[in-house]
Amino acid sequence: MSWLLLPSDSHFSLANIPFGIISTSSDAKQRPAIAIGDHVLDLHAFSSGDGFSASAEIQKQADVFSQPTLNAFAALGRPFHRAVRSYLQTVFAKDTKHPDVLKDNQKLQDSALLKRSEVKNHMPLAIGDYTDFYAGKNHAYNVGCLFRGPDNALQPNYTHLPVAYHGRASSVVPSNTPIRRPWGQILRPGNKIPDLAPCEKLDLELEMGMFICRENVLGNPIPVDEAEDHIFGYVLMNDWSARDVQAWEYVPLGPFTAKNMGTSISPWVVLADALEGAKGPGIKNDTELLPYLKQKKQDDVLGIDLEVELTTASGNKTVISRTNSKNLLWSWPQMIAHHTITGCNLRPGDLFGSGTISGTEAGTEGSILEQTKGGKVPIQLEAGEERKFLQDGDTLTIRGSFGSGDSVIGFGEVSGKIEAALPLFK
Amino acid sequence: MSWLLLPSDSHFSLANIPFGIISTSSDAKQRPAIAIGDHVLDLHAFSSGDGFSASAEIQKQADVFSQPTLNAFAALGRPFHRAVRSYLQTVFAKDTKHPDVLKDNQKLQDSALLKRSEVKNHMPLAIGDYTDFYAGKNHAYNVGCLFRGPDNALQPNYTHLPVAYHGRASSVVPSNTPIRRPWGQILRPGNKIPDLAPCEKLDLELEMGMFICRENVLGNPIPVDEAEDHIFGYVLMNDWSARDVQAWEYVPLGPFTAKNMGTSISPWVVLADALEGAKGPGIKNDTELLPYLKQKKQDDVLGIDLEVELTTASGNKTVISRTNSKNLLWSWPQMIAHHTITGCNLRPGDLFGSGTISGTEAGTEGSILEQTKGGKVPIQLEAGEERKFLQDGDTLTIRGSFGSGDSVIGFGEVSGKIEAALPLFK
Repeated sequence: MSWLLLPSDSHFSLANIPFGIISTSSDAKQRPAIAIGDHVLDLHAFSSGDGFSASAEIQKQADVFSQPTLNAFAALGRPFHRAVRSYLQTVFAKDTKHPDVLKDNQKLQDSALLKRSEVKNHMPLAIGDYTDFYAGKNHAYNVGCLFRGPDNALQPNYTHLPVAYHGRASSVVPSNTPIRRPWGQILRPGNKIPDLAPCEKLDLELEMGMFICRENVLGNPIPVDEAEDHIFGYVLMNDWSARDVQAWEYVPLGPFTAKNMGTSISPWVVLADALEGAKGPGIKNDTELLPYLKQKKQDDVLGIDLEVELTTASGNKTVISRTNSKNLLWSWPQMIAHHTITGCNLRPGDLFGSGTISGTEAGTEGSILEQTKGGKVPIQLEAGEERKFLQDGDTLTIRGSFGSGDSVIGFGEVSGKIEAALPLFK
Repeated sequence: MSWLLLPSDSHFSLANIPFGIISTSSDAKQRPAIAIGDHVLDLHAFSSGDGFSASAEIQKQADVFSQPTLNAFAALGRPFHRAVRSYLQTVFAKDTKHPDVLKDNQKLQDSALLKRSEVKNHMPLAIGDYTDFYAGKNHAYNVGCLFRGPDNALQPNYTHLPVAYHGRASSVVPSNTPIRRPWGQILRPGNKIPDLAPCEKLDLELEMGMFICRENVLGNPIPVDEAEDHIFGYVLMNDWSARDVQAWEYVPLGPFTAKNMGTSISPWVVLADALEGAKGPGIKNDTELLPYLKQKKQDDVLGIDLEVELTTASGNKTVISRTNSKNLLWSWPQMIAHHTITGCNLRPGDLFGSGTISGTEAGTEGSILEQTKGGKVPIQLEAGEERKFLQDGDTLTIRGSFGSGDSVIGFGEVSGKIEAALPLFK
């Protein structure tokens, strides 16, 4: 319960306290903030106005709240994130023991407590490297069937290690950044020679994203049971994909231009601590794992309710998929342990994608490719519209949350609208 | 001809003027420098001592020489790089028209002109994203034969587009950084289940690296005939590879942990302008290219003489390969055009790798994998030693240069020593 009016189903409850980077029309400076209900607390203004004065521990490090990204804050480690989250929960609590800090301090409220609808969100962290895993086993199987047939859908390594590839960091963008339909090389069925054309099979990939907070030294793997300490928090992710481009280019080194034209993330990073209660069993893996992937902690896969809504240019909205992030074969600590097994160094701000999350039932697919069986069976939308892939003017919105009522812990949403291809090369 | 004594075969002739980042034992601050003969010119000290006073254009931007990386300098674009290189060539010329600047200025020489052997090199640029191409057709064919047999050695897309994958930026390290032999998942011949073990097939990949200087906006491809303006300069690269790990993990999304434990680069970036004369025909491509890959400029592939030397723990040195970077199917502008065709944004400091460069003859291979036919035929080294793959204590050194005599334009070298695997997970 907070003294601040929080809508009862808000993703940004007192139990959440997610971190992001904002600016306002009156102050273009990008600075850290938390989301709470329909408001944000500008942490730069809050800190400048002595908001952290009741905690010497936080006060000492308060310069991280003047940075244009959360990297410096993240790098201070999970005990510090925990302290700040807990302090801010205390500040906003109805029975706060620090009423002078904000509750009874109208001046600081005026400068630091802003309406969420009036701030602009930016990238929460500067991403060093972005790695996209492929831990959604149902998705991997579905797509494998379409690309290689059911006999080779899952490769022999799939249940032994978390398959992943290095993604493109420069084109990771915050929610509401428009996505331009790409041109690309496409090999038409029956042809032996590709042509250059605007992508005709533009798709989403419903994923969770995870940000790293703590680095390791090159050459030194992170043990799986210590990996949790390296997790800053989570976002929703849409890894836009040009399926026709992907099918032609991806052998033998993996997807490249089909995936580097945009990856959208939700702007508020939900701290790892806030989601401890969301952990449970993932997809069961019957394979005996090598020791470096065996966790002492069982049932360590995050279970976030997810939905995908498509809004057409004419304004019709249809939820085309509902699923849950428990549909993963690997936990985040397992992904970290595998990523670093050969010695790869992670840095604060590195982003991991889970891979596309699909359930096993119709209507739980994390990509249109799967739901339409490769573009063959159209998805029926409101008002008689239908889609085999995304069209210009379509807006894709992913929402995700855990729990219900006053203790929802949610991500808000990640949204992106498809713009028509440039008239290039015609 | 310079008033400074330059060894006659120096890679760092007056015709070169490559840029890097240095520090010294007396000043740990990382700052820009150029290499010239056996010296470096500390550009921070040079600029602070009014070294650029004879050029208003450069003086105006001199704060880029106080930065800890070359990114800000690179971002100023090729006309500016050209102006600085040309100015410094004038300053060091025997008949310099600015003798007061350095030639007759003992005080500035004392502060800014340092012995190259007494400076430490650091990463020249902060890398945003690292992309590794696969443009060495002979290598792609040789490795394709080993991994998939001669019939599927080159995939159907290979001659239509520059195949590439996103690499790992965090583990790109400057020359002389030790490389730790990695642990990894390895599937033994005849086995169905992998084990975890130190890599037994540790290999080099001889590559050229290219740094981007000019960004493009997300969604806007770079036309191939404008791509040259986006090239800052070149380095030598060794993309260390764990072949046994790679063979098991790489399907279907490409190499991952087999390549992310280290990529070494030479510390001095040779400007694109300095290598204009090194351009010529690459490997002939009989495929009719799509318009976005067709260059007006023909014969645009860099031809750099390359050699690989292996020094064993007992000190025996053997040049195990000599080749030339003309063994590429694609030019750098073609790689840039393809990288951005779907709209991917490049940023100053992004690094491209060429892919492994191999000739067609024995002794011209850019990897040990190829030279030993997959580890079957050992390479004979000096003093009766031999290698099927790299052993602990081996040092691998790549050198590269163009031209001869007083006008050699060279890269110096990139070197790395293999350290024994950690005693982890035993």
